[in-house]
Amino acid sequence: MKVSDSPFPSSISFVAETGVIPEATAHYQKRLSDLRGLFLDPVALEQRIQDENDPVCYENYAFNNSQADGDVFFGTTIIYPGKVGIEYHLTRGHYHRKRDHAETYQALSGRGLVLFEREDGTTCTAELAPGKVTYVPPFWAHRSVNTGPVPLVFLWTCPVEAGHDYEALRGRGMRQVVVERGGCPCIEGRP
Amino acid sequence: MKVSDSPFPSSISFVAETGVIPEATAHYQKRLSDLRGLFLDPVALEQRIQDENDPVCYENYAFNNSQADGDVFFGTTIIYPGKVGIEYHLTRGHYHRKRDHAETYQALSGRGLVLFEREDGTTCTAELAPGKVTYVPPFWAHRSVNTGPVPLVFLWTCPVEAGHDYEALRGRGMRQVVVERGGCPCIEGRP
Repeated sequence: MKVSDSPFPSSISFVAETGVIPEATAHYQKRLSDLRGLFLDPVALEQRIQDENDPVCYENYAFNNSQADGDVFFGTTIIYPGKVGIEYHLTRGHYHRKRDHAETYQALSGRGLVLFEREDGTTCTAELAPGKVTYVPPFWAHRSVNTGPVPLVFLWTCPVEAGHDYEALRGRGMRQVVVERGGCPCIEGRP
Repeated sequence: MKVSDSPFPSSISFVAETGVIPEATAHYQKRLSDLRGLFLDPVALEQRIQDENDPVCYENYAFNNSQADGDVFFGTTIIYPGKVGIEYHLTRGHYHRKRDHAETYQALSGRGLVLFEREDGTTCTAELAPGKVTYVPPFWAHRSVNTGPVPLVFLWTCPVEAGHDYEALRGRGMRQVVVERGGCPCIEGRP
Protein backbone atom coordinates (compact mmCIF):
# COMPACT_ATOMS: atom_id res chain seq x y z
CA MET A 1 0.00 0.00 0.00
CA LYS A 2 1.14 3.55 -0.75
CA VAL A 3 0.37 6.69 1.27
CA SER A 4 -2.09 7.90 -1.37
CA ASP A 5 -3.99 4.57 -1.30
CA SER A 6 -4.38 4.44 2.49
CA PRO A 7 -7.98 4.29 3.75
CA PHE A 8 -9.33 7.25 5.70
CA PRO A 9 -9.83 7.14 9.47
CA SER A 10 -13.36 6.52 10.74
CA SER A 11 -15.36 5.86 13.90
CA ILE A 12 -17.54 2.81 13.43
CA SER A 13 -20.54 2.23 15.70
CA PHE A 14 -21.42 -1.14 17.17
CA VAL A 15 -24.33 -2.19 19.38
CA ALA A 16 -22.96 -3.99 22.44
CA GLU A 17 -26.18 -5.91 23.17
CA THR A 18 -26.78 -7.22 19.64
CA GLY A 19 -23.35 -7.01 17.99
CA VAL A 20 -24.78 -5.18 14.98
CA ILE A 21 -22.31 -2.97 13.09
CA PRO A 22 -24.51 -0.87 10.79
CA GLU A 23 -21.54 0.13 8.59
CA ALA A 24 -20.11 -3.40 8.32
CA THR A 25 -18.43 -4.26 5.04
CA ALA A 26 -19.21 -7.98 5.43
CA HIS A 27 -21.76 -10.08 7.31
CA TYR A 28 -22.58 -13.78 7.47
CA GLN A 29 -24.75 -16.15 9.48
CA LYS A 30 -24.14 -19.78 10.32
CA ARG A 31 -27.22 -21.92 10.88
CA LEU A 32 -27.15 -25.25 12.67
CA SER A 33 -27.21 -27.02 9.28
CA ASP A 34 -23.94 -25.25 8.38
CA LEU A 35 -22.33 -26.81 11.44
CA ARG A 36 -22.97 -30.49 10.74
CA GLY A 37 -20.05 -32.61 11.89
CA LEU A 38 -19.00 -30.21 14.65
CA PHE A 39 -21.31 -31.24 17.50
CA LEU A 40 -21.01 -34.39 19.61
CA ASP A 41 -24.65 -35.42 19.06
CA PRO A 42 -25.69 -35.51 15.37
CA VAL A 43 -29.16 -36.86 16.22
CA ALA A 44 -29.91 -33.95 18.55
CA LEU A 45 -28.59 -31.60 15.86
CA GLU A 46 -30.92 -32.91 13.14
CA GLN A 47 -33.84 -32.81 15.56
CA ARG A 48 -33.25 -29.14 16.29
CA ILE A 49 -32.77 -28.29 12.61
CA GLN A 50 -36.15 -29.90 11.92
CA ASP A 51 -38.07 -28.64 14.98
CA GLU A 52 -36.78 -25.07 14.92
CA ASN A 53 -36.55 -24.50 11.16
CA ASP A 54 -32.72 -24.48 11.14
CA PRO A 55 -31.99 -21.62 13.56
CA VAL A 56 -29.02 -19.28 13.35
CA CYS A 57 -26.27 -20.44 15.72
CA TYR A 58 -23.95 -17.47 15.25
CA GLU A 59 -23.29 -14.51 13.03
CA ASN A 60 -20.42 -12.22 12.19
CA TYR A 61 -20.01 -8.57 11.14
CA ALA A 62 -16.69 -7.23 9.86
CA PHE A 63 -15.30 -3.83 8.95
CA ASN A 64 -12.43 -4.19 6.51
CA ASN A 65 -10.75 -1.59 4.35
CA SER A 66 -8.00 -3.46 2.56
CA GLN A 67 -6.15 -6.76 2.28
CA ALA A 68 -2.78 -5.03 2.63
CA ASP A 69 -0.19 -6.49 4.99
CA GLY A 70 0.03 -4.35 8.13
CA ASP A 71 -3.62 -3.33 8.06
CA VAL A 72 -5.97 -4.40 10.86
CA PHE A 73 -9.64 -5.29 10.66
CA PHE A 74 -12.27 -5.81 13.30
CA GLY A 75 -15.80 -6.99 13.76
CA THR A 76 -18.25 -8.70 16.04
CA THR A 77 -19.34 -12.30 16.54
CA ILE A 78 -22.71 -13.07 18.09
CA ILE A 79 -23.32 -16.61 19.37
CA TYR A 80 -26.94 -17.20 20.28
CA PRO A 81 -27.65 -19.13 23.48
CA GLY A 82 -28.58 -22.78 23.22
CA LYS A 83 -27.30 -26.34 23.25
CA VAL A 84 -27.18 -29.26 20.87
CA GLY A 85 -27.82 -32.15 23.24
CA ILE A 86 -25.66 -31.15 26.22
CA GLU A 87 -23.12 -29.20 24.15
CA TYR A 88 -23.25 -25.41 24.09
CA HIS A 89 -23.48 -23.40 20.85
CA LEU A 90 -20.06 -22.80 19.32
CA THR A 91 -18.22 -21.34 16.34
CA ARG A 92 -16.44 -23.53 13.78
CA GLY A 93 -13.02 -22.71 15.20
CA HIS A 94 -9.90 -22.11 13.14
CA TYR A 95 -6.18 -21.63 13.02
CA HIS A 96 -4.86 -18.53 11.34
CA ARG A 97 -3.54 -19.35 7.87
CA LYS A 98 -0.44 -17.44 8.96
CA ARG A 99 0.04 -19.41 12.15
CA ASP A 100 2.26 -16.77 13.80
CA HIS A 101 -0.49 -14.11 13.74
CA ALA A 102 -2.40 -13.17 16.91
CA GLU A 103 -5.79 -11.58 17.60
CA THR A 104 -7.78 -10.11 20.48
CA TYR A 105 -11.37 -10.73 21.59
CA GLN A 106 -13.35 -8.46 23.84
CA ALA A 107 -16.72 -9.57 25.18
CA LEU A 108 -19.34 -6.81 24.92
CA SER A 109 -22.27 -8.73 26.44
CA GLY A 110 -23.02 -12.26 27.58
CA ARG A 111 -20.46 -14.79 28.76
CA GLY A 112 -18.53 -17.66 27.33
CA LEU A 113 -15.29 -19.49 26.84
CA VAL A 114 -12.66 -19.80 24.16
CA LEU A 115 -11.24 -23.28 23.55
CA PHE A 116 -7.62 -23.16 22.40
CA GLU A 117 -5.27 -25.81 21.07
CA ARG A 118 -1.87 -25.92 19.41
CA GLU A 119 -0.63 -28.31 16.75
CA ASP A 120 1.65 -29.90 19.37
CA GLY A 121 -1.52 -31.05 21.22
CA THR A 122 -1.48 -28.50 24.05
CA THR A 123 -4.95 -27.27 25.04
CA CYS A 124 -6.10 -24.28 27.05
CA THR A 125 -9.25 -22.25 27.73
CA ALA A 126 -9.87 -18.58 28.50
CA GLU A 127 -12.88 -16.61 29.58
CA LEU A 128 -14.99 -14.24 27.50
CA ALA A 129 -16.63 -11.70 29.80
CA PRO A 130 -17.25 -7.94 29.70
CA GLY A 131 -14.34 -6.01 31.21
CA LYS A 132 -11.73 -8.40 29.84
CA VAL A 133 -9.61 -8.65 26.73
CA THR A 134 -9.11 -12.27 25.68
CA TYR A 135 -5.70 -12.60 24.06
CA VAL A 136 -5.51 -15.12 21.17
CA PRO A 137 -1.76 -15.74 20.82
CA PRO A 138 0.14 -16.91 17.72
CA PHE A 139 -0.12 -20.63 16.86
CA TRP A 140 -3.32 -21.38 18.82
CA ALA A 141 -6.53 -22.58 17.12
CA HIS A 142 -9.54 -20.98 18.75
CA ARG A 143 -13.25 -21.76 19.03
CA SER A 144 -15.75 -19.66 21.00
CA VAL A 145 -18.61 -21.07 23.06
CA ASN A 146 -21.65 -19.34 24.56
CA THR A 147 -22.15 -20.82 28.04
CA GLY A 148 -24.81 -18.32 29.16
CA PRO A 149 -28.54 -17.68 28.73
CA VAL A 150 -28.22 -14.56 26.51
CA PRO A 151 -26.36 -13.82 23.24
CA LEU A 152 -22.60 -13.75 23.62
CA VAL A 153 -21.30 -10.71 21.71
CA PHE A 154 -17.61 -10.08 21.29
CA LEU A 155 -15.46 -7.68 19.33
CA TRP A 156 -12.44 -9.15 17.56
CA THR A 157 -9.42 -7.30 16.19
CA CYS A 158 -6.94 -8.98 13.89
CA PRO A 159 -4.19 -8.27 11.33
CA VAL A 160 -5.85 -8.63 7.90
CA GLU A 161 -3.11 -10.94 6.63
CA ALA A 162 -3.68 -13.54 9.41
CA GLY A 163 -6.26 -15.41 7.32
CA HIS A 164 -8.35 -18.42 8.34
CA ASP A 165 -7.59 -22.12 8.13
CA TYR A 166 -10.71 -24.13 8.98
CA GLU A 167 -9.46 -27.31 7.31
CA ALA A 168 -6.74 -28.20 9.83
CA LEU A 169 -9.40 -28.87 12.50
CA ARG A 170 -11.82 -30.69 10.22
CA GLY A 171 -12.34 -34.39 10.67
CA ARG A 172 -11.48 -34.61 14.33
CA GLY A 173 -12.77 -31.25 15.66
CA MET A 174 -11.09 -29.61 18.62
CA ARG A 175 -9.73 -31.76 21.43
CA GLN A 176 -12.03 -30.30 24.08
CA VAL A 177 -15.78 -29.77 24.31
CA VAL A 178 -17.96 -27.63 26.58
CA VAL A 179 -21.02 -29.44 27.89
CA GLU A 180 -23.62 -28.85 30.56
CA ARG A 181 -23.28 -31.05 33.64
CA GLY A 182 -25.62 -30.45 36.58
CA GLY A 183 -26.60 -27.06 35.15
CA CYS A 184 -23.02 -25.81 34.80
CA PRO A 185 -20.59 -25.56 31.86
CA CYS A 186 -17.92 -28.21 32.04
CA ILE A 187 -14.79 -28.51 29.85
CA GLU A 188 -14.06 -32.12 28.92
CA GLY A 189 -11.84 -34.05 26.54
CA ARG A 190 -13.63 -35.11 23.33
CA PRO A 191 -14.90 -38.68 23.86
CA MET B 1 8.48 -17.46 16.83
CA LYS B 2 8.04 -21.23 16.99
CA VAL B 3 4.95 -23.13 18.19
CA SER B 4 6.70 -24.13 21.41
CA ASP B 5 7.62 -20.48 22.16
CA SER B 6 4.11 -19.11 21.65
CA PRO B 7 2.59 -17.33 24.66
CA PHE B 8 -0.42 -18.89 26.36
CA PRO B 9 -3.94 -17.48 25.96
CA SER B 10 -5.27 -15.29 28.77
CA SER B 11 -8.17 -13.06 29.74
CA ILE B 12 -6.89 -9.73 30.94
CA SER B 13 -9.10 -7.46 33.05
CA PHE B 14 -9.36 -3.71 32.54
CA VAL B 15 -11.33 -1.09 34.44
CA ALA B 16 -13.39 0.92 31.96
CA GLU B 17 -13.74 3.99 34.21
CA THR B 18 -10.05 4.32 35.16
CA GLY B 19 -8.24 2.40 32.41
CA VAL B 20 -6.24 0.41 34.95
CA ILE B 21 -5.01 -3.01 33.72
CA PRO B 22 -3.85 -4.77 36.91
CA GLU B 23 -1.85 -7.37 34.94
CA ALA B 24 -0.21 -4.83 32.62
CA THR B 25 3.34 -5.64 31.51
CA ALA B 26 4.21 -1.95 31.05
CA HIS B 27 2.95 1.37 32.37
CA TYR B 28 4.03 4.98 31.97
CA GLN B 29 2.78 8.45 32.85
CA LYS B 30 3.35 11.71 31.00
CA ARG B 31 3.27 14.86 33.09
CA LEU B 32 2.80 18.33 31.62
CA SER B 33 6.56 18.91 31.91
CA ASP B 34 7.13 15.91 29.61
CA LEU B 35 5.01 17.62 26.95
CA ARG B 36 6.91 20.90 26.60
CA GLY B 37 6.89 22.09 23.01
CA LEU B 38 3.59 20.41 22.14
CA PHE B 39 1.06 22.99 23.35
CA LEU B 40 0.26 26.31 21.66
CA ASP B 41 0.74 28.34 24.82
CA PRO B 42 4.09 27.68 26.59
CA VAL B 43 3.42 30.38 29.20
CA ALA B 44 0.13 28.76 30.27
CA LEU B 45 1.94 25.40 30.35
CA GLU B 46 4.68 26.61 32.71
CA GLN B 47 2.09 28.26 34.92
CA ARG B 48 0.16 25.01 35.31
CA ILE B 49 3.34 23.00 35.95
CA GLN B 50 4.20 25.43 38.74
CA ASP B 51 0.71 25.93 40.21
CA GLU B 52 -0.37 22.26 40.12
CA ASN B 53 2.95 20.56 40.90
CA ASP B 54 3.35 19.20 37.38
CA PRO B 55 0.16 17.12 37.01
CA VAL B 56 -0.15 13.91 35.00
CA CYS B 57 -1.66 14.67 31.59
CA TYR B 58 -2.03 11.08 30.42
CA GLU B 59 -0.94 7.55 31.19
CA ASN B 60 -0.68 4.25 29.40
CA TYR B 61 -0.96 0.56 30.35
CA ALA B 62 0.11 -2.19 27.96
CA PHE B 63 -0.11 -5.97 27.88
CA ASN B 64 2.58 -7.40 25.65
CA ASN B 65 3.84 -10.96 25.35
CA SER B 66 6.47 -10.80 22.64
CA GLN B 67 8.10 -8.63 19.99
CA ALA B 68 7.53 -11.25 17.30
CA ASP B 69 6.13 -10.18 13.93
CA GLY B 70 2.47 -11.21 13.68
CA ASP B 71 1.78 -10.85 17.39
CA VAL B 72 -0.69 -8.23 18.62
CA PHE B 73 -0.57 -6.20 21.79
CA PHE B 74 -3.12 -4.01 23.51
CA GLY B 75 -3.51 -1.56 26.32
CA THR B 76 -5.27 1.51 27.60
CA THR B 77 -4.57 5.22 27.41
CA ILE B 78 -6.09 7.57 29.96
CA ILE B 79 -6.09 11.30 29.17
CA TYR B 80 -7.11 13.40 32.16
CA PRO B 81 -9.48 16.32 31.55
CA GLY B 82 -8.02 19.81 31.36
CA LYS B 83 -6.65 22.52 29.11
CA VAL B 84 -3.38 24.35 28.64
CA GLY B 85 -4.64 27.83 27.84
CA ILE B 86 -7.52 27.08 25.47
CA GLU B 87 -6.03 23.80 24.16
CA TYR B 88 -7.34 20.49 25.44
CA HIS B 89 -5.06 17.83 26.97
CA LEU B 90 -3.50 15.62 24.31
CA THR B 91 -1.05 12.78 23.71
CA ARG B 92 2.29 13.33 21.96
CA GLY B 93 1.04 11.80 18.73
CA HIS B 94 3.07 9.54 16.46
CA TYR B 95 3.40 7.75 13.17
CA HIS B 96 4.00 4.04 13.26
CA ARG B 97 7.65 3.27 12.56
CA LYS B 98 6.31 0.80 10.03
CA ARG B 99 4.09 3.30 8.26
CA ASP B 100 1.86 0.68 6.64
CA HIS B 101 0.68 -0.72 10.00
CA ALA B 102 -2.79 0.07 11.34
CA GLU B 103 -4.37 0.08 14.81
CA THR B 104 -7.79 0.36 16.47
CA TYR B 105 -8.98 2.49 19.36
CA GLN B 106 -12.09 1.87 21.38
CA ALA B 107 -13.30 4.46 23.89
CA LEU B 108 -14.31 2.88 27.20
CA SER B 109 -15.33 6.07 29.00
CA GLY B 110 -15.22 9.79 28.38
CA ARG B 111 -15.15 11.49 25.01
CA GLY B 112 -12.60 12.91 22.66
CA LEU B 113 -11.15 13.22 19.21
CA VAL B 114 -8.25 11.75 17.28
CA LEU B 115 -6.32 14.15 15.05
CA PHE B 116 -4.90 12.40 11.99
CA GLU B 117 -2.46 13.52 9.30
CA ARG B 118 -0.52 11.92 6.49
CA GLU B 119 2.92 12.82 5.21
CA ASP B 120 1.31 14.19 2.03
CA GLY B 121 -0.33 16.88 4.22
CA THR B 122 -3.87 15.46 4.32
CA THR B 123 -5.62 15.90 7.68
CA CYS B 124 -8.67 14.26 9.21
CA THR B 125 -10.35 13.78 12.58
CA ALA B 126 -12.44 10.99 14.09
CA GLU B 127 -14.47 10.65 17.23
CA LEU B 128 -13.60 8.67 20.38
CA ALA B 129 -16.81 7.69 22.14
CA PRO B 130 -18.12 4.56 23.87
CA GLY B 131 -19.90 2.25 21.42
CA LYS B 132 -17.50 3.03 18.57
CA VAL B 133 -14.29 1.57 17.23
CA THR B 134 -11.98 4.27 15.90
CA TYR B 135 -9.99 2.88 12.99
CA VAL B 136 -6.39 4.18 12.71
CA PRO B 137 -5.45 3.28 9.12
CA PRO B 138 -1.96 2.71 7.70
CA PHE B 139 0.14 5.85 7.02
CA TRP B 140 -1.76 8.24 9.32
CA ALA B 141 -0.09 9.92 12.30
CA HIS B 142 -2.49 10.07 15.23
CA ARG B 143 -2.88 12.18 18.37
CA SER B 144 -5.72 11.80 20.88
CA VAL B 145 -7.41 14.69 22.66
CA ASN B 146 -9.76 14.68 25.67
CA THR B 147 -12.52 17.22 24.93
CA GLY B 148 -14.72 16.29 27.90
CA PRO B 149 -14.96 16.91 31.65
CA VAL B 150 -13.98 13.38 32.77
CA PRO B 151 -11.00 11.10 32.00
CA LEU B 152 -10.99 9.80 28.43
CA VAL B 153 -10.15 6.07 28.57
CA PHE B 154 -9.60 4.07 25.42
CA LEU B 155 -8.40 0.60 24.59
CA TRP B 156 -5.91 0.28 21.72
CA THR B 157 -4.97 -2.84 19.78
CA CYS B 158 -1.98 -2.91 17.47
CA PRO B 159 0.44 -5.29 15.71
CA VAL B 160 3.57 -5.39 17.91
CA GLU B 161 5.88 -4.70 14.96
CA ALA B 162 4.15 -1.38 14.10
CA GLY B 163 6.49 0.60 16.39
CA HIS B 164 6.40 4.30 17.21
CA ASP B 165 7.97 7.25 15.44
CA TYR B 166 7.56 10.39 17.54
CA GLU B 167 10.37 12.27 15.79
CA ALA B 168 8.63 12.83 12.45
CA LEU B 169 6.11 15.18 14.11
CA ARG B 170 8.61 16.99 16.29
CA GLY B 171 9.47 20.59 15.56
CA ARG B 172 6.23 21.59 13.93
CA GLY B 173 3.69 19.42 15.81
CA MET B 174 0.53 18.26 14.11
CA ARG B 175 -1.17 20.50 11.57
CA GLN B 176 -4.40 20.82 13.55
CA VAL B 177 -5.19 21.76 17.14
CA VAL B 178 -8.29 21.31 19.30
CA VAL B 179 -9.18 24.40 21.30
CA GLU B 180 -12.15 25.59 23.30
CA ARG B 181 -14.20 28.35 21.65
CA GLY B 182 -17.39 29.51 23.34
CA GLY B 183 -17.36 26.46 25.60
CA CYS B 184 -17.10 23.95 22.73
CA PRO B 185 -14.21 22.00 21.20
CA CYS B 186 -13.14 23.42 17.88
CA ILE B 187 -10.67 21.93 15.37
CA GLU B 188 -8.44 24.60 13.82
CA GLY B 189 -5.32 24.80 11.72
CA ARG B 190 -2.17 25.43 13.77
CA PRO B 191 -1.55 29.21 13.77
